[in-house]
Amino acid sequence: MKRLTIIGSTGSVGKNTLRVVEHLQGRFEVFGLAARSNVEVLARQVAIFKPRVVALADAASVDSFVAECRRNGAACPEILGGAEGVRLIAEAPESDVVISAAVGAAGLEPTYAALRAGKRVALANKEAMVVAGELLGKTASQFGGLILPVDSEHNAIDQCLRAGKQNEVRKLILTASGGPFRTTPAEDFGGITPEEALNHPTWKMGRRITIDSATLINKGFEVIEASWLFNIPAEAIEVIVHPQSVVHSMVEFVDGSIVAQIGTADMRVPIQYALTYPERLVSPVAALDWASVTSLEFALPDREKFPCIGMAYQALEMGGTAPAVLNAADEIAVGEFLDRKISFTDVPRIIRDTLAAHDPVPADSVEAVLEADRWAREYATTSRASS
Amino acid sequence: MKRLTIIGSTGSVGKNTLRVVEHLQGRFEVFGLAARSNVEVLARQVAIFKPRVVALADAASVDSFVAECRRNGAACPEILGGAEGVRLIAEAPESDVVISAAVGAAGLEPTYAALRAGKRVALANKEAMVVAGELLGKTASQFGGLILPVDSEHNAIDQCLRAGKQNEVRKLILTASGGPFRTTPAEDFGGITPEEALNHPTWKMGRRITIDSATLINKGFEVIEASWLFNIPAEAIEVIVHPQSVVHSMVEFVDGSIVAQIGTADMRVPIQYALTYPERLVSPVAALDWASVTSLEFALPDREKFPCIGMAYQALEMGGTAPAVLNAADEIAVGEFLDRKISFTDVPRIIRDTLAAHDPVPADSVEAVLEADRWAREYATTSRASS
Repeated sequence: MKRLTIIGSTGSVGKNTLRVVEHLQGRFEVFGLAARSNVEVLARQVAIFKPRVVALADAASVDSFVAECRRNGAACPEILGGAEGVRLIAEAPESDVVISAAVGAAGLEPTYAALRAGKRVALANKEAMVVAGELLGKTASQFGGLILPVDSEHNAIDQCLRAGKQNEVRKLILTASGGPFRTTPAEDFGGITPEEALNHPTWKMGRRITIDSATLINKGFEVIEASWLFNIPAEAIEVIVHPQSVVHSMVEFVDGSIVAQIGTADMRVPIQYALTYPERLVSPVAALDWASVTSLEFALPDREKFPCIGMAYQALEMGGTAPAVLNAADEIAVGEFLDRKISFTDVPRIIRDTLAAHDPVPADSVEAVLEADRWAREYATTSRASS
Repeated sequence: MKRLTIIGSTGSVGKNTLRVVEHLQGRFEVFGLAARSNVEVLARQVAIFKPRVVALADAASVDSFVAECRRNGAACPEILGGAEGVRLIAEAPESDVVISAAVGAAGLEPTYAALRAGKRVALANKEAMVVAGELLGKTASQFGGLILPVDSEHNAIDQCLRAGKQNEVRKLILTASGGPFRTTPAEDFGGITPEEALNHPTWKMGRRITIDSATLINKGFEVIEASWLFNIPAEAIEVIVHPQSVVHSMVEFVDGSIVAQIGTADMRVPIQYALTYPERLVSPVAALDWASVTSLEFALPDREKFPCIGMAYQALEMGGTAPAVLNAADEIAVGEFLDRKISFTDVPRIIRDTLAAHDPVPADSVEAVLEADRWAREYATTSRASS
């Protein structure tokens, strides 16, 4: 029986992880659960899964969590509060596997802590790998940890890579749904509203990631993640638009063979894979119904309509703290677009300006990354104000 | 440097194997070449690849081969004649790898001999595995041989299986182009002419295999091969129509993940894979151009229009010599269809009748298989005459 800790247990990946744990009865025991402030959901999870310890990133929510547990008539586990509490739960020696599923920058420190403690990390927090991929990769190898991506694209690549050796890889091929503006003419991009951009064709997600999928910078972030996760240079990573999202991603080997991972869009598949790797266990997820697939489309992305993809490659090439700056500038720009302060086409402009103004330093510590993040947020905000 | 022998060197797979050997300079040395009677091509191959020994299945061609070598001014290698000569070259202790690429029943004995000699066999002869898959599989494990399929579908499955373990496989998914009559209404099948049936949409192949692709029995044969090659029961093998032939086949694992192998339709890829496995080496074959792919279609096959698929499952279930009977009855029926003696819809009828009349015995020797083959040919011929 492996013991696991979920950082971000009340979010979508956290909940799906608990469904997988429930399905794989007797394989995993929940040691710790961490959430930001959703005490109702956390208290319900505690009543069912009986973790030994919980952490609330928002320390002010501890009291209401205790009240919620009492209301449920459930015994309260040990409770830690604040970012420090989340870090402690991530590195606690009692757990074997940490699911890193906190949203945004909050995921970096616990992920780093878990890897320093030599754990297997099922990584669903995209941002950690974008802003500090080099550092996390090195930390994992140095301390004997292992990063298994939960993201459907990277999880697919992880599976496909099993069909060959590292030095036999010619190319990673990340598939992209293409977002809601795949077929929108370039000249209409300036008038895109937040409502239109939030209407993603395939996935229901958070607001920022939905906008990131509309600008396709999300795919650029995935290129950066893939580069660090799989130790593959940017020029050997390709993005292909595939609106049906049935082929989750692919690997092309030097002999010309392409190996793809295909399936239904259910997060439980990659989560379970990350938890049980190298074993595959029976999943309750319905198999892909080929009668419903009919046609799968593929196209090269329009790099002019979606300049953010190119900026991700540029950030990778700049190296060091540049990817952290890309991420921070995007978060600021997306926030201002959602607040109707800037237009859709201002988003890539602000990111480009911020990246151009950045002088990267080695991303060799969490502090260096967070410092670049702070700088970029300030610069991006000013950049908007001055534009 | 590995030494290889090609059985069927003057055919399409044989020629492509020599192109691969040429490309992989210094990795393989040609020990032996065997052909039926194409002395011109064989003599040219001898001049370039300088094998130590050649075999001509048609012993009467030996003299003209010697003359051809002289005309080329090339030194003559040791020459063996007849089926016995081909068998000797296949099992010769000097070679490490045998490419079994003879067409039809002629491929069975040399394949069996090579496996009894504990060699790696790159298997391109489909018939051997259909008529004697159980025997060949057992022989390979007993004598330490290894069968690596060169057929694009089975080679694809071999690659996909690397992404998991044998007991984690839920299903093999063989893709089928669907042949030229995929969209032809069932009521028009009776009037299909040999010319129409020989006009295959994707592949240029021999006459029998082209008709087999039109009736889809070819895919049924592949189900039988897959079952023996990968030790997977018939009910866990599915056929899916995919007219573009870009996805070469797939494996579905118990966790719901499907792994597919994708690529251009160039035999050099699976041939090279079978020769160099578990290594993948750089291939000169152009990578798949995603800009040209645009759309991949999938559909379940129409089992009523193409009853031969079901008969293959039936033959597997009957077991023993039934697959050999299926193959022989089909060869007779296809020959008679090409000779305009019977209609296109008579082909499945003759196969069905022959299979129904067969009382299978264990396929535990080449003799048992060949005896069933003889019986089925006679029965199928009579069956036509009496219909």
